[in-house]
Amino acid sequence: MSKRVRAAYQGEPGAFSEVAARQLLGDPQTLPFASFEEIFEAVRTGDAECCVVPIENSLAGSIHRNYDLLDESGLTIAAEASLRIAHNLLAMPGATLADLRRVHSHPVALAQCGRFLRTHPHLEPVPVHDTAGAVRLVMERGHAEEAAIASERAGEIYGAATLAVGVEDHPRNFTRFFAVAPHTATLPLVQRAAASRWKTSLLLHIPNRPGALHRALGFFASRGIDLAKIESRPIEGRPWEYGFYLDLIGRAGEQPLAEALAELGREAERVKMLGTYRAAE
Amino acid sequence: MSKRVRAAYQGEPGAFSEVAARQLLGDPQTLPFASFEEIFEAVRTGDAECCVVPIENSLAGSIHRNYDLLDESGLTIAAEASLRIAHNLLAMPGATLADLRRVHSHPVALAQCGRFLRTHPHLEPVPVHDTAGAVRLVMERGHAEEAAIASERAGEIYGAATLAVGVEDHPRNFTRFFAVAPHTATLPLVQRAAASRWKTSLLLHIPNRPGALHRALGFFASRGIDLAKIESRPIEGRPWEYGFYLDLIGRAGEQPLAEALAELGREAERVKMLGTYRAAE
Repeated sequence: MSKRVRAAYQGEPGAFSEVAARQLLGDPQTLPFASFEEIFEAVRTGDAECCVVPIENSLAGSIHRNYDLLDESGLTIAAEASLRIAHNLLAMPGATLADLRRVHSHPVALAQCGRFLRTHPHLEPVPVHDTAGAVRLVMERGHAEEAAIASERAGEIYGAATLAVGVEDHPRNFTRFFAVAPHTATLPLVQRAAASRWKTSLLLHIPNRPGALHRALGFFASRGIDLAKIESRPIEGRPWEYGFYLDLIGRAGEQPLAEALAELGREAERVKMLGTYRAAE
Repeated sequence: MSKRVRAAYQGEPGAFSEVAARQLLGDPQTLPFASFEEIFEAVRTGDAECCVVPIENSLAGSIHRNYDLLDESGLTIAAEASLRIAHNLLAMPGATLADLRRVHSHPVALAQCGRFLRTHPHLEPVPVHDTAGAVRLVMERGHAEEAAIASERAGEIYGAATLAVGVEDHPRNFTRFFAVAPHTATLPLVQRAAASRWKTSLLLHIPNRPGALHRALGFFASRGIDLAKIESRPIEGRPWEYGFYLDLIGRAGEQPLAEALAELGREAERVKMLGTYRAAE
């Protein structure tokens, strides 16, 4: 019997990070932690073979803190997932929408379901730490007037009844996750189609002068390499200087990307490879 | 007596958005609303002359939802503020750190103060909707064992005692705010130094082909125009196409920026000006 890979994630069972871990790794042993710092630490100490972290959301933006932790960790991106963030209204089996009085969830999830809550004014929103934790709480207490807003998976884990699906305001609410590990080779990743594209993520620091970014992008543009993401970010402690997150289409060790990265490395102040992996889309 | 400008913001009195409104507008009449949608709506209907919205945080990233609302509103950026997000521990006058058992705040603020909470394990974190609302709650209940984590200003408004200052993990936690209005000319903005730089923000859609961004940035690079921010974002409903947020140093109506923008306008699929304003830094 093969040993299941241990994947650390932030949250409780049923959190979207746990759903992403299962999408990427099949049937991992998922290890919940309270903070992002702790999941990177778990990989560093060997308590987990990898961790699964959200890196950006289509409404809320990039999570700079997780880019920082990835950079500091020296770990590499092994795989990418993109998860539709769909919120369900979950309650005790037998409860009806008319029975409900209070809806528990993380405030960000409650805010994402503002339209549903405004059209059901008899439901009082109650903020709690975690979407999946809200379902656990409701099921432990067992009152028909209490509900939670969380993922379909959280409902399954705790045996809750689904009273409404897709109660979020914006259906195009996606979160992108990375599986992060010391080496990619040893992870039992769910196989992607051989035709799926490769993506390469890196951090770039360039001299602070007009046109410096234009020149850096020229190494890719001149070779027809597509840029899937670019984002500037001020560099801590160095006012007026910027770092960039870049996602390029292609595999780091193959041409033409390898040559473009070599040229960039000779010109840039800092190029930090974060990983080369099969794209989720 | 001159009429005070009415500035809508999301949150309760003492929220960081209200602090930003006062920094930008001196002594505005600040109007609290529950959601970002409502503050843009208040400006549209004339209930407020402007609204003040957070647009990005140095740890949590750009708030795409507010870029969208700004785009849809047709309003313009009148001014920019950058606020250090410092969290204080606030409680009933007379209470001591040893008395405390529970600390109320927004979960994002509680998460930003993880180190303080871990080193004070007798304090149970309690999530609520709003940092300033947490202070109001603690003061209304009047128990010496309850505290809140919120801004210095929230403490002043509700007459709370400050038991600890700067309890956040990361001192370099800044949020950037925009004052947004139908026209900039009529707003009584706090004057910036004449030497302060101008910044111009825009949304850009360009054809989805390798090198298209490189070419677009060339219009600015060739004229020595500095790029203060760039961020790509997938365009809703058009997979594989990207829009960009750009901040350029310079005033939209002046050279060399005016000419660069005219050239860009002839090549791009869409250029939407969001505003030209004095930079906060």
